[in-house]
Amino acid sequence: MSKRPLILVTNDDGITAPGLRKLIQVMNEIGDVVVVAPDSPQSAMGHAITINSILNCTPIKIDEGPQTEYACSGTPADCVKLGVHEILKQKPDLCVSGINHGSNSSINVIYSGTMSAAVEAGIEGIPAIGFSLLDYQWKANFDAVADYVKQISLSALSNGIPEGVILNVNFPKLPKKEIKGIKICRQAKAYWIEKFDKRVNPLGKEYYWLTGEFINEDRGEDTDEWALKNGYISIVPVHYDLTAHHAIQQLNTWDF
Amino acid sequence: MSKRPLILVTNDDGITAPGLRKLIQVMNEIGDVVVVAPDSPQSAMGHAITINSILNCTPIKIDEGPQTEYACSGTPADCVKLGVHEILKQKPDLCVSGINHGSNSSINVIYSGTMSAAVEAGIEGIPAIGFSLLDYQWKANFDAVADYVKQISLSALSNGIPEGVILNVNFPKLPKKEIKGIKICRQAKAYWIEKFDKRVNPLGKEYYWLTGEFINEDRGEDTDEWALKNGYISIVPVHYDLTAHHAIQQLNTWDF
Repeated sequence: MSKRPLILVTNDDGITAPGLRKLIQVMNEIGDVVVVAPDSPQSAMGHAITINSILNCTPIKIDEGPQTEYACSGTPADCVKLGVHEILKQKPDLCVSGINHGSNSSINVIYSGTMSAAVEAGIEGIPAIGFSLLDYQWKANFDAVADYVKQISLSALSNGIPEGVILNVNFPKLPKKEIKGIKICRQAKAYWIEKFDKRVNPLGKEYYWLTGEFINEDRGEDTDEWALKNGYISIVPVHYDLTAHHAIQQLNTWDF
Repeated sequence: MSKRPLILVTNDDGITAPGLRKLIQVMNEIGDVVVVAPDSPQSAMGHAITINSILNCTPIKIDEGPQTEYACSGTPADCVKLGVHEILKQKPDLCVSGINHGSNSSINVIYSGTMSAAVEAGIEGIPAIGFSLLDYQWKANFDAVADYVKQISLSALSNGIPEGVILNVNFPKLPKKEIKGIKICRQAKAYWIEKFDKRVNPLGKEYYWLTGEFINEDRGEDTDEWALKNGYISIVPVHYDLTAHHAIQQLNTWDF
């Protein structure tokens, strides 16, 4: 690529999140950066889009750097749509989302606003990567993974991500020197067992908080969960053809 | 199945939507019905779940019938989690979602609250089906498809849906006698070209409405779009393993 690549940056933790600020810093080293990120936290928004309400999108300056930034009132997927069609008015060379505060491995990819932003870009034919660090804290240490974020992004730009594929990158919560390397993985077959914390509000009405426990019974050593537990960075190639092709033949035997 | 099946019913258009009311009627003929549906429209919510706020879930009676009903303040996926873990406190024999007012074929499955509710049930190991009618109107004619909804649900109960698979059923907007039958399909490779309608609010600030045009360049005759255009009901088996398995080998050639 002769000219500097144009890079669209977004996330789901909101435009002030330290994970996003680190991602912007790294991308500034690689290309020309435009940020369109939610003006408030949008975790677990999945692939929600805003169709029954309006969207605001306002230029903003959060910290120093050559990037251009916009805060958007919508979901992560909205940010990508607005970013591409209204702000850039062209497809960027790369869209990166994150760095998420917390894991988007295994089944979490389904609920993830971070990954939905990346998938939205993928649907639009833009090479896209979602980055997540297995540390939910606002003060998580993103320095340890900055070099890997750069390396993976440069590899994606030079190799080209396969068509219809988006990269789901998760980093273990480890000091840099303890990270063993990168593994290409499949999504582990893990799930959440939900529990609801039932409480009573000041007016005497019951309400619920969703909580849960993450269960991984997948013993495969080719999964993202295995890689992360064993000190590796996991990269799962994700696609948006949800067809369970293997089931088509079986369903054709049904007598409707 | 010797006893009447226990059926969890939900949707994304909200608990008063005519499509849901029809689905409840049909399910009452098949089994014991518990409804946990959003208390307001939740279209295009994708697989969003509520983790940063509380959930309300209130018993309600919308119309006549033996069903038990609850209105929930959350997303469609929240409704399923609450329905299974707090209301039923057991896995139902079937979870049905819909009947959606509007298409969830092709790439729309990604944005669909209707399908995310069904997928959430699938993740929990519950046989699940999402139903959608290609008519966005509130007064859409769901009578034309009621018999098919029953037939497909009974087939699913008797055959058993393959593990890890959820059925995405879309009905063409046709009189019953013009519907040619049922096709098992793959998700068409179609997409939306977004357009944003830029307006100015009463205070002089710009805002946006998302609009767009649906483009199908997939010429395959095994797709849901083809089936629906040609007068068939489409059933796409959907799964939640988003891994693009075919891309793993290629990514392993990258030199990180």
